[in-house]
Formats: sequence, structure tokens, C-alpha cells
Amino acid sequence: MNEVAGRRSRSGGGASRRAERTAVSFETARFIQRNIPNFEILNEEALQIIEHNAETVLEEIGVNFVENPAALARWRDAGADVRGERVHIPRGLARKLISTAPKTFTQHARNAERNVDIGGRNLVLAPVYGPHFVRDMEGGRRYATLEDFQNFVKLGYMSKWLHHSGGTVCEPTDVPVNKRHLDMLHAHMTLSDKPFMGSVTEPSRAQDSVDMAKILFGADFVQQNTVMTSLININSPMVFDGIMMGALEVYAANNQASIVSPFIVGGAMAPVTVAGTLTQVLAEILAGVSYSQLVRPGSPVIAGAFVTSIDMNSGAPTFGTPEASHITYGAGQLVRRLGLPYRSGGSFCGSKLPDAQAAYETANSLNMALLAGVNFMLHACGWLEGGLVSSYEKFVMDADQLGTLHHLAQGIQVDLNGQAMDAIREVGPGGHYLGCQHTQANFKSAFWRSDLFDYKPFETWAEEGARDTQALANERVKRQLADYQAPDLDPGTREALDAFVARRKSEMPDAFI
Amino acid sequence: MNEVAGRRSRSGGGASRRAERTAVSFETARFIQRNIPNFEILNEEALQIIEHNAETVLEEIGVNFVENPAALARWRDAGADVRGERVHIPRGLARKLISTAPKTFTQHARNAERNVDIGGRNLVLAPVYGPHFVRDMEGGRRYATLEDFQNFVKLGYMSKWLHHSGGTVCEPTDVPVNKRHLDMLHAHMTLSDKPFMGSVTEPSRAQDSVDMAKILFGADFVQQNTVMTSLININSPMVFDGIMMGALEVYAANNQASIVSPFIVGGAMAPVTVAGTLTQVLAEILAGVSYSQLVRPGSPVIAGAFVTSIDMNSGAPTFGTPEASHITYGAGQLVRRLGLPYRSGGSFCGSKLPDAQAAYETANSLNMALLAGVNFMLHACGWLEGGLVSSYEKFVMDADQLGTLHHLAQGIQVDLNGQAMDAIREVGPGGHYLGCQHTQANFKSAFWRSDLFDYKPFETWAEEGARDTQALANERVKRQLADYQAPDLDPGTREALDAFVARRKSEMPDAFI
Repeated sequence: MNEVAGRRSRSGGGASRRAERTAVSFETARFIQRNIPNFEILNEEALQIIEHNAETVLEEIGVNFVENPAALARWRDAGADVRGERVHIPRGLARKLISTAPKTFTQHARNAERNVDIGGRNLVLAPVYGPHFVRDMEGGRRYATLEDFQNFVKLGYMSKWLHHSGGTVCEPTDVPVNKRHLDMLHAHMTLSDKPFMGSVTEPSRAQDSVDMAKILFGADFVQQNTVMTSLININSPMVFDGIMMGALEVYAANNQASIVSPFIVGGAMAPVTVAGTLTQVLAEILAGVSYSQLVRPGSPVIAGAFVTSIDMNSGAPTFGTPEASHITYGAGQLVRRLGLPYRSGGSFCGSKLPDAQAAYETANSLNMALLAGVNFMLHACGWLEGGLVSSYEKFVMDADQLGTLHHLAQGIQVDLNGQAMDAIREVGPGGHYLGCQHTQANFKSAFWRSDLFDYKPFETWAEEGARDTQALANERVKRQLADYQAPDLDPGTREALDAFVARRKSEMPDAFI
Repeated sequence: MNEVAGRRSRSGGGASRRAERTAVSFETARFIQRNIPNFEILNEEALQIIEHNAETVLEEIGVNFVENPAALARWRDAGADVRGERVHIPRGLARKLISTAPKTFTQHARNAERNVDIGGRNLVLAPVYGPHFVRDMEGGRRYATLEDFQNFVKLGYMSKWLHHSGGTVCEPTDVPVNKRHLDMLHAHMTLSDKPFMGSVTEPSRAQDSVDMAKILFGADFVQQNTVMTSLININSPMVFDGIMMGALEVYAANNQASIVSPFIVGGAMAPVTVAGTLTQVLAEILAGVSYSQLVRPGSPVIAGAFVTSIDMNSGAPTFGTPEASHITYGAGQLVRRLGLPYRSGGSFCGSKLPDAQAAYETANSLNMALLAGVNFMLHACGWLEGGLVSSYEKFVMDADQLGTLHHLAQGIQVDLNGQAMDAIREVGPGGHYLGCQHTQANFKSAFWRSDLFDYKPFETWAEEGARDTQALANERVKRQLADYQAPDLDPGTREALDAFVARRKSEMPDAFI
């Protein structure tokens, strides 16, 4: 399969059993380049209504930039009507401002084979972000630690279909809050060679992220290239807080990418109807992306939409629902019309366990995201329990399913080999294709197959313990962590990163809030 | 929700606990009427290549109608070149013949509120068909019995999102092979009032099905209306056997509908490439549907495609794969261009258990089928282990998920209420939508919610036993079967059906092959 780049093989051990165990694949697939259309759920009239309404929201209602006088000054200079912390953006101004944002950009990895192109018809997959808990089959649900964080970075590194190491794959709650970002960045930089995300929880931590990136990539390289993509949430409805905008300002000033993304539970942070939510999402994207361009015109930015529905009986957020799909499809169209890369989708589910509920909801979300034209999918694997939990087993289950998206995106080949007329002639009515020449020539790459699921006959499966998917995934997690080998890293760079982390930690007293 | 027709309420019992138990919903949703576009994966050039090649297959290679001299005579009379049992169909002839097939037709149920319109932008959902085994959480995997069959008909009758009672929901292996169809039809006719399928395993059993339908609906009604839709498999590649065609002949002659459907494991019964498989599928559909119109022009027919991929390591069929999606999307386009109703999709999976693998694969298949424009989805719930097993728990799990397809298909409302501008104005930056007037007015119908999944807080869920989806489904199966009440049926009709079954059984010695 020509989509697979950067194959690594490891030499086997002495005994054949050991040799089999160490015959580990470190393949990483190239980011997805779609050869299929997007699913366009809104017609032109609906798109124009929503676009018109979003501009009305910006001009008439406005958005708040709080505890950020510099931002208000920027907006005033750009021609907005600023009243207190409320910014009223005249119709058309935001669209004008965002025109400097790049349609696509490359995020560099320290291994150039892992570089990702974000935007266009591409899809880049990154793991779950943010959970304070982890779960595995034996240990159950517990607070996440730095060891868990490192384990998830290792699993991400070893996942063939994951292009990106992500950011807060779980919160290392055993490390002081004000120092976690140093250990997290250090793990992404040393345990993986895939691209990663920076810290956003304080502007100073964003600066630490940039400084560490300069050690890893070189200062000049960082100023000229994008090496981090970081997640800037909007406090919906229509509030841009000083901390998040402060982090965005650091990244934009350093030519690093931000995902400007409303975080919306429908009916709570946005209207209960889909069109209303899309209107607010578009207004928030227009304001946030414009602001990134006010800080530094041309700085790379991704327009995001994290939107889910709510169970009106209990108030719980719900995932994999049709309304979430409606919004994700619609937001994709709106963002494409802005000419921006689009972030949405993920392995979303509300289930407490990596069970059937988790998988239905996740598969609904993953398929929708591919067809919605998403360019950057955070949370593409490992998400459990509404994002409270990073699940070890679900991480490898979802990561395996991401392979289906790669193959779906290839579309249908209709060249002569694809048409297979010679095979149909050779076999004829009542024949069998398994042995024919065309099958022999194509069977290795013809069909996607899971590296995790059970395809065995019932009797074999029963003899082997009648295991469910969670049990198979548990075994895979253990095998991958046992087989893990860190990618090569220049020792001097490694020492400099270690020293930076040690110094920054020594400069601050521990803080746990 | 205006999609829900035929609400029935039952009076509660005395004690409040009993009242709660008997507050059972017998709602049945109306068949899906899509308000969203189809996903068109093939471009015009690719479609024309495949259409051209399919005609080449029919003309140059031909198809076999075996052990069926009358069929060969019909083909000869229609202008085909018949050599032995091989029928060569000149380019264009099949397209001309199928032009008499209706674009849409109504299948009547004995409860007119359950009638389904098949074709156009509609989607009708029917349960799993054909497994010889059943599985439930306590009993494990075992041969299916008539009691199981009756249970699945009851579960289908009580499923809100299922429009059709189906056919062989499982094989009642404790009943002689030559008499099963009588008990199966009797169950569909008496235990449910939804539309159903007839027997196809012998032409005489198709005739029995028609005769029983005449008792249920009246003989005149059956001659003038379609009351059964039955599954006619093609023996791919390109063989139409005498038994299946004999059943089709009975149904077509009586104005009853047939699904003409290749059953294909890719790489075995069709070429290993998607475009090649689509070519063969189209050729087979053209030949089979043409034949139905040769028997009786204007008889209702559905063009089907049951296609899955294969694990080239083991030879096992695989489900929910990207190649299956490619074929289903592509076949949908080809069938729409023929102007015929399209059957495909289902709750397909290869897993042995209703676990995460089953749910990922199933959700992949269900979502794809909705967007592929499927009009009749057999196997929409309950399919397990590659179709060898009807699963009690998965039946209700899948049936619940079918609700997401209904809501997805509604599309996005952009009327003034949908736009929600008043809500955005009322709430403003930093506000909260839960209490606002627009949310209050819309929350009941705004978001789909599962009737099965766990949406509770972690602590509540843990206290209640930390159950997974299978355990929740097991409870739901038991509750539904306990709550089941048969729909009313005229006693005279019931007696006549009983008498017919008794008479036909007495006329034949038992046969188990």
C-alpha cells in the first residue's frame, strides 16, 4: 500500500517465539488525502441564511474579549465597535481579516517523514485530549499519572493510523499543575517523533512550549515553520477569555498554529436547534480566527467545532448522535467556504466502558467526521465517558478503526485493473474468483483488515477463551508497551530538553490549582 | 415528533411499580423519508464505464438460468441469444425490459398504519434474515427454535424504529424443513401487524405464502396489492437457479415483490476490486430484474446488493469494512440510475459477541446504508457472527441505533425557529441556553436519545452494577418479551390461518433436508 511511509523493521531475537514477539511493525500511515467527495448536507440557501445570521450576531450582539485590554485595542484599531469588553464587529470585517490565514499549512515533526499537511482535502488524526482519569481492564478507573501520559504517547507513536502525537493525552495529575506542561512536552518530544501540540493553560506555558520547540527544532526553524498546533477553546457563547487568548497570542506571534474552537454542549452553550448552533459556531470562528490574524497576519489557524448534544432528561452530554452529525456536516461546509482548515470529530462516546455503546457512538462520530471534510481530528482515539477518561483499551480499538477511514478515503479505482473485466471473463457464470489471476495479483492490498478484531471460526475463538474486543485490546496494549522502543534522538538535544525542564521546575514552587 | 404514527397506550396496573412496568410504548415510527442528500462516491465517467462493462458482461459472457427451460424460452422470445443454459443478453435489452418495473411501490400491512412505501427517498428497515443459531447472554449460542423465531417477531413488533417484520428472523430448526415456512408465516401474520416476507426455498412454499396472504388480506386484495416482499438471491457469479427463480415466478405472477439480490463475498463470488464487483452486481441486477418483468411486466421488484469483503488471511467474510462501503455507495448510484428501489446494508458484523467489534462494524454499515440511499434494509438489527447467529441482545441494541438514522435523515431545519436568532439575542455572550424560552419550546424534540444506552453519572452507574451494553440489552429483551401483547386479529381469520397450516402440514411427511 503506497499510503504507508516510514516503515521500520526490528531485528528478531534468537528463539523463534522471541522472534515472533519482536517482529513489531512501526509503520505510520501518511495523513489521509481524500479521493472521495464531502457530504454536503446544507443547500446554498441554508448556507447563506446561516452566514448572514452569523454576521448579524457579530455586529448586533457582539462577542466578549475579557481581561484583555490589548485585544480590545487591536479590535478598535481594526475598525470594530468596542463597548467595555464587548466587541461589535461590523458586517464583512471578520471575513476580510481572515483572508490572510493560510488555506493549508505544514506542521513539521522532528522526523520529516511524519510531517502533516493540514487543510485542503487532507485529514490528520490525533489522539484524545484532556481527560483527568484513565481506565484499563485490570485497574479500572483512576486518576491519570505521568506514567499513564507517557504510556499513551508510546501507544500513539506505535499506532499505524495515527499521524499526530496530540497534546494532553491525559492529565498527569501527580505532577504539579504549573509544571505538568513541561513533562508533557518532554514526553511528546522524546518518546515519539510525530508532531505534537503545545500548552495553552497559561501564556507563560505556551512560551515554555515554544522555547522547548526551539531546543528540539532550532530557533530559526521554529520562527520559519509551524511545529506545534495548539487548542484554543472559546468559552461559548461568545466569550474569548484572557488566558486562552494569551496563549493564542504567544503561538501566533511565533508562527505556530492554533485551533480556534468553540466547545459546545447543544442546548447549554448554544441554541437547542442545529441551525442556531451553526450560526453561533460560525460567528465564534469568525471572531476568533480574525483575532489570530490581528495578532500576526498569515499565522496558521484551524477553525474548530466541538459540538455535542445533550440528554434533556439528565443534562448529560450525549455523543454519536444525529444532531452532532448535522452540526459537524454543516460546520464543515461553512468552514470550507471560509477557506480555512477544519477541526472536528473524534472517537466520542458517553459510555463508561469500551463496550458496544462506546463503539456505536464512536463509529457514528468517526464516519461522520471523514465525510464532513474534517482536516484535523483531535480525540481520534482513546476517548471514553464523555471525555473524562482516557481508555487504554479503547485507544487501540479506535486506533485500529482509523484504518477504515484511510481506506474509505481512497475512493474507487476504475482503471483497467479496477474494472477487472479479464477476471469476469476468466471466471464466468458459476465459477470462483479466489484462484483467478486477477485475485492473486491484487489480494494483498484489496481489502482492509483489522489488526485487532476477531476473524476466526467460532470454534477456534471459543477454544482461545471466547474473548471480547476489550480483552483483545488489553492484550494488544500490553504487547505494544512491552515492544516499545523510543525513536532516536540526538543526545545533546535530549540533554538540553532535560536541563530546560529541570531549570523551569526549579524556578517555580509547586502549585496544584 | 410527527414521524411517529400509530401510538398505542396500555392502561397501567394497580400498584405503581406494576404501572411503571406496563407503561410500555408500542410506537412505531413511519418509514424514513430522507431530507438529506445521498453520498455519491462515483463520478459520471466512472458510472458510465461500469454501465458499459455490465452490458458487455451480459452480451459477451452471458448469465446462466439453470434447470429452468421455461426461463430460457422466455429469454429467447425476448430476443436474447440462448446457448444451452447460457443467456446472452444483447446490449440495451435488459435496460429496455426493466423499464416496466415500478420506481416505487407500497407494501401493505394488515394494519394500514404500518404500510411501507418502498423506493424514492424512503428507507424501510427490516430485521436480520437467515441465521440457524441464536445467542443470548445467559444461554449462549445454540440452534434456533420456533420459540426463538416467535420471540424475534415479538421484539420486532415492539421495536419503535423497525418498520417491517422481516422473514426468516432465525431458522426454526426444530420444525421440519418442508414445514417451517408455514409456522414462520403464521408467526408474522399473527404476532405482528407489520409487513413481512414470504418463503423462497421452494416454489410450492412461495405458493403457500401467497395462499396464506390471501387468507389474511383477502384474495382480491392480494391480486391488486403487494403484501409480501421476498428475498431472491442470485448465485453469484451470474447463476440464476431454478428454485429461486421458481419462487420469483410465483411472486411476480401474483404481483408480489421480490428483492433480486446477488450475495457476494468479494474476491470469492466477484472480482477482488470494487469496480469489478460493481460491474458484476449491475449485470446480475439487470438480468434478474429483467426476468421478473418477463414473467409479469410491472411486477414490483427491488434491486439488491449484499456484498462484503473477505479476510485474505483466513478466507473469513469481513463486515463494516471500507470496501463494503465503497460497493454499497456505488451500487446505490447505479440502481438509482436504473430507476429501481435499492436494497442493501444491515447490522453487519463478524464478531461472536455483541461487543465493541460488533458495534463498530454495525455502525459503519448502518451509517453507510443511510447515506448510500438504500430503500429497503434487510438485516437492520440482530445480525451477529457473519449472519450465522441472531442475537437477542444485539437485536434491541441495533434497533435502538436505528433511531439515529431516522433523525439524521430529517436534515437541518432553517426556518425561523431553527435559526434561533431570538435565543442568541436573549442569552448573549457568557450566558446559558438551558433556561431560555427557545430551549424550553424545543427541548423535547431537539435531540435524539437512546432508550437503551447509559447516560447516567459514573457513580450512579457504578452503584447500579456497572453494567455494559450487553447487560442493559439483556434486561430490555426480557422486559419487552414480558410486556408483549399480540395485536388484535379477527378470530375467523386466525382460525382459517390455523386450519391452513394444519392441513398443509398433514399433507406432507416431515423432511429435514
